[in-house]
Order: sequence, then structure tokens, then C-alpha cells
Amino acid sequence: MTWRSVLDGVHFDSSQHSPHDIGRKAMNRNLSDCAAMACLPVAAVATVALPHGRGIEYAKQLYVGMRAAGEAFDCRLVGGDTGSWPGPLALTVTILGRADGVEPIRRSGAMAGDGIYVTGALGGSLLGRHMSFTPRVHEARTLARSSIITAMIDLSDGLSRDLRHICHESGIGVRLSSRSIPIHHDAITLSRRSGKPAIEHALHDGEDYELLFTASAPPPIGQRIGTITAGRDIVDIDGQTSLDARGWEHTL
Amino acid sequence: MTWRSVLDGVHFDSSQHSPHDIGRKAMNRNLSDCAAMACLPVAAVATVALPHGRGIEYAKQLYVGMRAAGEAFDCRLVGGDTGSWPGPLALTVTILGRADGVEPIRRSGAMAGDGIYVTGALGGSLLGRHMSFTPRVHEARTLARSSIITAMIDLSDGLSRDLRHICHESGIGVRLSSRSIPIHHDAITLSRRSGKPAIEHALHDGEDYELLFTASAPPPIGQRIGTITAGRDIVDIDGQTSLDARGWEHTL
Repeated sequence: MTWRSVLDGVHFDSSQHSPHDIGRKAMNRNLSDCAAMACLPVAAVATVALPHGRGIEYAKQLYVGMRAAGEAFDCRLVGGDTGSWPGPLALTVTILGRADGVEPIRRSGAMAGDGIYVTGALGGSLLGRHMSFTPRVHEARTLARSSIITAMIDLSDGLSRDLRHICHESGIGVRLSSRSIPIHHDAITLSRRSGKPAIEHALHDGEDYELLFTASAPPPIGQRIGTITAGRDIVDIDGQTSLDARGWEHTL
Repeated sequence: MTWRSVLDGVHFDSSQHSPHDIGRKAMNRNLSDCAAMACLPVAAVATVALPHGRGIEYAKQLYVGMRAAGEAFDCRLVGGDTGSWPGPLALTVTILGRADGVEPIRRSGAMAGDGIYVTGALGGSLLGRHMSFTPRVHEARTLARSSIITAMIDLSDGLSRDLRHICHESGIGVRLSSRSIPIHHDAITLSRRSGKPAIEHALHDGEDYELLFTASAPPPIGQRIGTITAGRDIVDIDGQTSLDARGWEHTL
């Protein structure tokens, strides 16, 4: 079971993003949560708090977006409840999932010596990818079936923060190779605007919705970015960054 | 499964109601939905959209209220997700329920000749009862075990509207005895202020959270207020009201 809201001014901007894209993100954020546990999404329900003045057509488009995103992973939207109110747009989705023959993966199983990996390139998602990402449901199932994955999380808060979640819950540390982190071209584009190195965007931006996972042997997919240690610290062996785990505040 | 939001300015007023009471209502509205189907609530999850500036203590009180309301019916709050945002307070609860040996009751099973009943007195809930009601989970289970209940709904929109939901989904009509409708003393108090007859408050106010149900034989609990007919109309045989099904717009 996953439960997540997406809120105007935090996870999307209703003056910029279409109701279809907003609905899609509401569903995909939950599907990404399912992926983090390697669970198979089965059915979803949604509530929508619709600002006064937004018409029925707008609400319908939100549901079309949610439904399409769910169906891409055989997850049916089985119920919705829409209420008009004086506040901004808010959507909440809850997904029921099944383990379906695969042991659910938690954040707490990483062991010293494990490799640490990501499923894709990171950073700069605010340029648009945070609205249009593909949740890594299939990748998560592939990884879980390999039986070598010890911990997993989806990258919503940013690599530096989400890495800390795994460290905290597993009671371990990390020797990170920052030069091995796959950097998205959006991070490079954004670094030209921000003046910050692209690696900083990859480490801290958040809303990548890639999977970050640890494995006791080389996994079938993923890019290795470091090694789990028995300590408690996150150390960048390439000395590029201080890893202060600022992460991303989920504010547009 | 039930899913409902409660929204500031619609279902509560955060300038008047305590966070504990708001949390309680968020859970109880869902428990009332469970009751409408005679299902046994098992576990709940919640999301909270918290206005910027509301502190952690306020959020905690919301969860204390939700948790206590759930535990009163052995329904554990197993997960929560709180996000700060620029909008007003919004809470969404999803409950997982079990049929547990009882056939779920729908709105669509009422048959001509059935009696129609309510579990308690109606009207004037805005005076405070809409925040402090007890969801009729136990009553619903008692009714469902009798195997004579043909349709059921919880009274959230108001008797006149919710009756129409049953009529519409069952394809039947009602001969209502408006003089048999139990009127809450809150409806009488409110009628002194509003100048409207108390029966109007009982029919249209909404947020009573009593059960409205139809039964093929005298049920173990409930007050009879009419008879299901093969037609499509709702007729008041006491001629007190026109039953225009205005119901309640859920706006404070």
C-alpha cells in the first residue's frame, strides 16, 4: 500500500502544468513508491480537492491522467472522490499492491560490502522531468527477482538525502564515488543557469524517481556509485562534494 | 476500501476546531463510509497537507485524533505522510476493510415493499455534531448479520439527497412518512435561529452520519420512516414537504 499527495505549488504548478500531467504525476509518484518496495501495483483510489471555479472538464482531465498512468502498469483506478473547496488543487492517491512472489524490499537491509547503485541519470528534473518520469516498477521487479538486492528506495528527496535514509535505517555508511554518479543532461543545462556544478544538481535536486539500491552481487541493471561500509559516514572517495544531505525541499 | 478527504472551509473550520477534532473527523468520515457497506475497518493510512506555519505539534494532534478515532473501532492507522504547503489544511484517509463473513451492502438492492429506516435522529449537525459523531460501524454489522438489509447508505449529504441516491441506484421510489423522521434537538435549536421548520433541517442539513437503510422485514434496530415503491418518485404521505432533494452542499 502506498499513499501520497501532490500539491499545487509544491509538486506541480497548476498555472504551468496541464491537468492531465498533474493527474499523471499524482499516480506516478505512488507507482514509484510501489517500485521502491518492488511491489506489484494492483488498484488505486484517488481524492481530488478542486479549487472553486475549476470546472468538471478540468477534473475529468486529472482523472484521465491518473487512469492512463495507472493502466501503463496494469493498475486500475477503481475509485475517486472529488470535492470543491476554497484552497489550491490537491490530489491524493492510494495504491494497493501485491508482493506477488517477490519478497518486499525495505530500506533497512544494506550490509557492509554491498555495492550501491542507481537505475538512471540524476539531476535537473525541475526542467520538466519531475512531471513526466516513468516509475521504475518493472526495473524494481527485475531487481527483486535477482534475490541479491538488500535495500532500495526511490529517489524523490534527492540522492544525498535518500542515501541518508538507507544509511540511517540500515545502520551503515557509504564510500561514494561521486565521479560514478550518472549525471542527467538536465543537470548540465541547469548548472549553466545556476552556476553550480552539475554534480551538485545530481546529488541534491530530487524528484529523479530513479531507484537507489544496494546489492550483495552485481545486479542485472543499474550503475554502481559506491560501496556500503560498516561505519556511519557518507564519504566521497573522489573528494568532489561534502555530502551535507541538503536534498530537495519539494518546493517549486 | 474507503477514501475521503476533509478540507478546511468545507468539512471543518481550522479557526474554530481543534486539530484533534479535525483528525477525528477525517477518520470518522471514512469509518462511516465503511459502515455504509457494513464492512469491518482493519487499517488506515493518511496524508496531511499542512499549511506553512503550522508546527509539528499541530500535525501531531491531527494524527492523535485520527489514531484515537480509528482505535475505537480496532482500525489501526498504519501510515501517514505530511507535507507542508501554501494551501489550507487538507486531510485524506484511506481505510482497508474486510467483509468478514457478512455480505457487503450496496445502495442498489432496495425492492418495492421494503421498509426504509434510519438509525438515529437527524438535522442541525452543524451546531457541532458534524465534528463529534460516532460512525455507525457496530450498528451496520448488526444490521448486515440479520440478512434482511437490502440497501444502505450513510447520511452525509442529507436525507433528501441520500434517499435519492438509493432510489436512483435501486430504480425504485419511496412513500415517505415525514412525521416518522426522528428529529434531533439540534434541528429544533437551529430552526429557532433559521426560521425554517425543524423537519427541513432533518431532511436537508446533512452530515448526520446515521445510516439510512431498507429492509425486507423488521430490522433489529432503526426507526421506520417509509416504504419502498415500484415507482420512481419520493412522495411524502404526510404532505409536510416537497422533497426537492436539495441536500447539503458541504459548505460551512
